[in-house]
Amino acid sequence: VGSPKPRHVTRLVEDETIESIRGVLGSGIEAFGLRDDAGVVTVPGGGSVVASVDSVVEGVHFDLALCSPADTGWKASMGALSDLAAMGAAPLAALVALCVPGGTGEGELAVAIMSGVAEASEASGCPVVGGDVSSAGSVVVAVTVLGTVPGGGEPVARSGAAPEDAIVVTGPCGGSAAGLRVLRASTPGTPGRGLRQACTSYCRPVARLSEGDTARRLGAHAMIDVSDGLALDLHRLADASAVGFRLDDVPVAEGATLDEALGGGEDYELVFTLSPSALDGLSTSFGAAGLRPPVRIGTVVADPAERTLEGRPLPRLGWQHTVG
Amino acid sequence: VGSPKPRHVTRLVEDETIESIRGVLGSGIEAFGLRDDAGVVTVPGGGSVVASVDSVVEGVHFDLALCSPADTGWKASMGALSDLAAMGAAPLAALVALCVPGGTGEGELAVAIMSGVAEASEASGCPVVGGDVSSAGSVVVAVTVLGTVPGGGEPVARSGAAPEDAIVVTGPCGGSAAGLRVLRASTPGTPGRGLRQACTSYCRPVARLSEGDTARRLGAHAMIDVSDGLALDLHRLADASAVGFRLDDVPVAEGATLDEALGGGEDYELVFTLSPSALDGLSTSFGAAGLRPPVRIGTVVADPAERTLEGRPLPRLGWQHTVG
Repeated sequence: VGSPKPRHVTRLVEDETIESIRGVLGSGIEAFGLRDDAGVVTVPGGGSVVASVDSVVEGVHFDLALCSPADTGWKASMGALSDLAAMGAAPLAALVALCVPGGTGEGELAVAIMSGVAEASEASGCPVVGGDVSSAGSVVVAVTVLGTVPGGGEPVARSGAAPEDAIVVTGPCGGSAAGLRVLRASTPGTPGRGLRQACTSYCRPVARLSEGDTARRLGAHAMIDVSDGLALDLHRLADASAVGFRLDDVPVAEGATLDEALGGGEDYELVFTLSPSALDGLSTSFGAAGLRPPVRIGTVVADPAERTLEGRPLPRLGWQHTVG
Repeated sequence: VGSPKPRHVTRLVEDETIESIRGVLGSGIEAFGLRDDAGVVTVPGGGSVVASVDSVVEGVHFDLALCSPADTGWKASMGALSDLAAMGAAPLAALVALCVPGGTGEGELAVAIMSGVAEASEASGCPVVGGDVSSAGSVVVAVTVLGTVPGGGEPVARSGAAPEDAIVVTGPCGGSAAGLRVLRASTPGTPGRGLRQACTSYCRPVARLSEGDTARRLGAHAMIDVSDGLALDLHRLADASAVGFRLDDVPVAEGATLDEALGGGEDYELVFTLSPSALDGLSTSFGAAGLRPPVRIGTVVADPAERTLEGRPLPRLGWQHTVG
């Protein structure tokens, strides 16, 4: 277990390969991956569902030496639910594909992971309606979530940001990355400073479902969840909207560094843009929903090439919670 | 690569563990796994979706020495679509969680697998609306499918079989298992007898979507797809319906043995039960839909303990396509 690695190895899979995969899937087939957080499926009979899948893999997204099997199930579920939050959708149901190493203890491990899925299911009101368990070389938890936009409203895409929009984040970032750092530095049996907070931030992140719903009702133009790092995810939102941004400031979670806030990922805070006129209602709306006041961090600009923090270019590579 | 192994190792995961997982998920949470082929989710605004997830894992469900990456993507998709077929549902959309080993060629492998997913998507009219690609120790393809029952009809469960019902299968079984046997015996570069058919049966199975729809319209009481072997899957249907069965005969695919027909799995033929009065319309309905006439293989009986083939007890363990 070493220090966080640059994101670009996984980037190779997630961005470039996905563009190739989109080509293979053809023009008649809808979005795969990064264009939006979730796909929208029209259902005969009147409604529609918002659907997304998210996987966590042992040795890539988590390390069973640092978080428990139940934490892993929780994290996988919340990662998928966060995609619904980023569309302003409410959860309807989840399906879980679980792989565990074959042999002794495989059943117990599967049940322990699913107990964390069950906790997340209960916490988010998202029943598990299907699943599949297989033996495999390492643990993989792939969670598909189905959601709905309340009141038949439209989901919030990544592509709607307009020049002059305020850029808002629902809370301080970097807590998960800082938690990972603290967990890695801790010696088993002798808890280090802040270990409890680290465990909570890294092992038990929470999808911001109420925040996403409130942002959508407030008229958010574009929204994304911070799953791979505030910098990278904001670049993706700006790419989808063909705009740039000027960030004035970034709220950093207690105990985290600015680098962790920009590149840490897995905080699942939401970033959204709002017309300046809607800003007035921001604190009131979130307050009325019992939520922390969001933080304005910058402004959307027309030039897609202008993407700065305090006047300096903001790199698009973040870091991820790589293990090993 | 050896001979097919008894199913019970995977059974431990799929049946016993799933019962434990169902316990963990709690009474407020809907079915996980084997009770039915897919879950049903009511959609606000009207309609409902039938949803299922199915995974294939390298070294467990397939061997890249025997089938191509594209075949693997195809097989994973058809395995999931077969769950919709078994409910009498039509596909609406798919989401794919793909894991490929990291390092050189990982992007190419991901794209090759997805090209098979795209072929299955096109062949079945089921667009891919979401996906996720991760690095992992081995290849995992988890496909979630969403479907709908045409005309707002009810999906066909496993639990509706009634005494006196005829038991019907949509076609001969064992082709996939026989194909695997032929592929294993073949020497690279010197195709053996029947290799083309073996490749088609094992590497390119087809979900019986039209057959499932026709059976549902005809009033099928209970239905299941033959994914793990005719014997095992029929036992599951009988378990869910709390009935027994007497099989008179089983149609065996060309080149396959009776054992392969009973225990081979992955043929994706459908088994359903019908009231005797509906039997008259069977050939006509399937013929009108351009489908092969299904084969009556036996009768449902009231005693759950009576489960026979030609008067002898039919064991519930099948075999699976284990590799290695």
